[in-house]
Amino acid sequence: MPRPCITLLTDFGWRDTYVGQMKGVIAAINPDANVVDLTHDIAPQQITQGALALADAVDVFPPGTIHVAVVDPGVGSDRRLIAAEVGRQKFVCPDNGLLTFVWQRATQRRAVVLDEPRWWRTSVSNTFHGRDVFAPVAAAWSLGHELTQFGSPTDSPLVEVPVAEVAIRDSAVSGVVLTSDSFGNLITNIERRVIPVGATHVEIEIGGHHLSEIATCYADRAPGEALALFGSTERLEIAVVNGNAAERLNIQTGQPVEVRWRGVQL
Amino acid sequence: MPRPCITLLTDFGWRDTYVGQMKGVIAAINPDANVVDLTHDIAPQQITQGALALADAVDVFPPGTIHVAVVDPGVGSDRRLIAAEVGRQKFVCPDNGLLTFVWQRATQRRAVVLDEPRWWRTSVSNTFHGRDVFAPVAAAWSLGHELTQFGSPTDSPLVEVPVAEVAIRDSAVSGVVLTSDSFGNLITNIERRVIPVGATHVEIEIGGHHLSEIATCYADRAPGEALALFGSTERLEIAVVNGNAAERLNIQTGQPVEVRWRGVQL
Amino acid sequence: MPRPCITLLTDFGWRDTYVGQMKGVIAAINPDANVVDLTHDIAPQQITQGALALADAVDVFPPGTIHVAVVDPGVGSDRRLIAAEVGRQKFVCPDNGLLTFVWQRATQRRAVVLDEPRWWRTSVSNTFHGRDVFAPVAAAWSLGHELTQFGSPTDSPLVEVPVAEVAIRDSAVSGVVLTSDSFGNLITNIERRVIPVGATHVEIEIGGHHLSEIATCYADRAPGEALALFGSTERLEIAVVNGNAAERLNIQTGQPVEVRWRGVQL
Repeated sequence: MPRPCITLLTDFGWRDTYVGQMKGVIAAINPDANVVDLTHDIAPQQITQGALALADAVDVFPPGTIHVAVVDPGVGSDRRLIAAEVGRQKFVCPDNGLLTFVWQRATQRRAVVLDEPRWWRTSVSNTFHGRDVFAPVAAAWSLGHELTQFGSPTDSPLVEVPVAEVAIRDSAVSGVVLTSDSFGNLITNIERRVIPVGATHVEIEIGGHHLSEIATCYADRAPGEALALFGSTERLEIAVVNGNAAERLNIQTGQPVEVRWRGVQL
Repeated sequence: MPRPCITLLTDFGWRDTYVGQMKGVIAAINPDANVVDLTHDIAPQQITQGALALADAVDVFPPGTIHVAVVDPGVGSDRRLIAAEVGRQKFVCPDNGLLTFVWQRATQRRAVVLDEPRWWRTSVSNTFHGRDVFAPVAAAWSLGHELTQFGSPTDSPLVEVPVAEVAIRDSAVSGVVLTSDSFGNLITNIERRVIPVGATHVEIEIGGHHLSEIATCYADRAPGEALALFGSTERLEIAVVNGNAAERLNIQTGQPVEVRWRGVQL
Repeated sequence: MPRPCITLLTDFGWRDTYVGQMKGVIAAINPDANVVDLTHDIAPQQITQGALALADAVDVFPPGTIHVAVVDPGVGSDRRLIAAEVGRQKFVCPDNGLLTFVWQRATQRRAVVLDEPRWWRTSVSNTFHGRDVFAPVAAAWSLGHELTQFGSPTDSPLVEVPVAEVAIRDSAVSGVVLTSDSFGNLITNIERRVIPVGATHVEIEIGGHHLSEIATCYADRAPGEALALFGSTERLEIAVVNGNAAERLNIQTGQPVEVRWRGVQL
């Protein structure tokens, strides 16, 4: 078996030792696991942000990677804890919407409710299931156990966060800014596939700013200029070359974005 | 031998390459070591904060894990450099108080002064013993060498930082806020074991705020409300549900906290 | 073969999953690679800062370590992508100056232009070559392939960033502050070797402040006092004991520094 991979995505930040403690629990169970941080800077309790980050990151990992996601304001309450296989990736997280985007786009998927405490730490706190439940389950899973050993299969729907849908019209699509990254690039919910390949006279409008085409790369414009392009997750992004678009255009998450085109010439 | 685990706890931050350089030194000596970051965000030169973080994090790691702690304002001066075995965990750090809490609660413990330069980097700087002494000693130790190969056993007491003791009275205990975490949760020095199990009418007072019981988990209250609960290290915490208690209650490290109860009904 | 080491240095920050995605790509190709973060906090698009950080960090890594550096404002444009062997270290990065300092100080060095797409991800974005080109090339290289399998050897000079040279006179040297670290220590381009070993009456002037000698370690002065010393990369640093020199002395990157001495007594 090649060295198994476990990822961690949380809202714990890097300042405390919480993430380190999860890695300690994993190391004690499977010292050979390769633990990778996806991010720990999800804003506190922002499940939707975590769900998006998870969905955008997991595809590049080797099949069988176990992704542990902990943005968990309900820790210690009666929300369900789950493990799931979705496509060729595996997940361990609270059932609070973190799997929304991963789950929706998959056809091969199944989940269990974590109800087998023998895999957990002997003493389970009410505030840190990341360390006491999710980490030990992921570590044990990485040793080769089967999904169904960790709990009972469930067919009841998982909790989902609201999803901002795009509105597609004849020669236009409306969406919103989902998030901005640390460069200040504004990432929207408008995916490349909803805009016809041969569309001409493309125009993008966002917060009173107008952009007159979709560029290929950041260097297509002069430093300081705004541009639109399809980013690394195939979503439309608004960027400022060598600058911070979120600050320069003064735009927040949720801001409407519209893309219009004149017609498709085949 | 399973893959050995080495942890790093420093005040170096994540911005510079200092932590990366320590990992480079370790990789050159023991490529199989599993290096885990506990945290690098200890406030510069705050030894007490580092000592607490270390004590709260190490227990979950596999026996034999080597913890390297570097919060070291005296680097290059004549403070002692030590390695220690405390219970089933191992430590490498300056003798400046970083081991205080780990050392106090253990019975099985022994230390050596690092006075065997053959384990160090050939050229030792006066500003970066983390890279030049502690990392290579930890890496060599992880290869299976004995503690006493790294230096001379010492019986002289280790340096200790001042410890904020709780004052336990008949039906009350007084403590202080030790630190706040990145969620803004206020973590006190009042441990679960000092409050009788059957205590009723529990009241918590902190900075003019009154809380009337100890909750079980964050979701016990509505978003925005303050609550007290025992956190993942069995210490009393004051939190604001889905909010930042340190900011909302305007409370700093060192703030007195009092817990009172009416009587224990058996 | 011992477990190969790959380092990552970027301006991606820790907040997004970009770094995690690069690690996912590497894990899928070489699960045994030991991936070490040098830093991801290079200021966005600041190639010179990245080039300096890289040059100061790589020497401690085991021979054959592959360093992936991605500060890449020109991503997706026609800048060259390169892989290089410099001394006993290996590098994968855009040809935009990131290798300047590493390259200048080496005699054994050779580079190829990455023009063999069979090593890349099947679908290459225009915004994230770190994930789509550099990570998979580094991972494949760590499996033992030869440099020349990844592209065509090039003899045309690599792009270089401007280098702030020191001006050495009879009994004085003038330089500048290159950067400050997270402690606020001001790191200059004046290296230990340019000041005669027996120099006396050494005086340092920076931004109107005068320091009258070069100290040995931070603890040589009282807390709050400024001092000059040679740091862990053998460069002259200006520090404030247990304080932040950049803030306290109000000094930015680029600030001139002068060191004068009276004479060398042999």
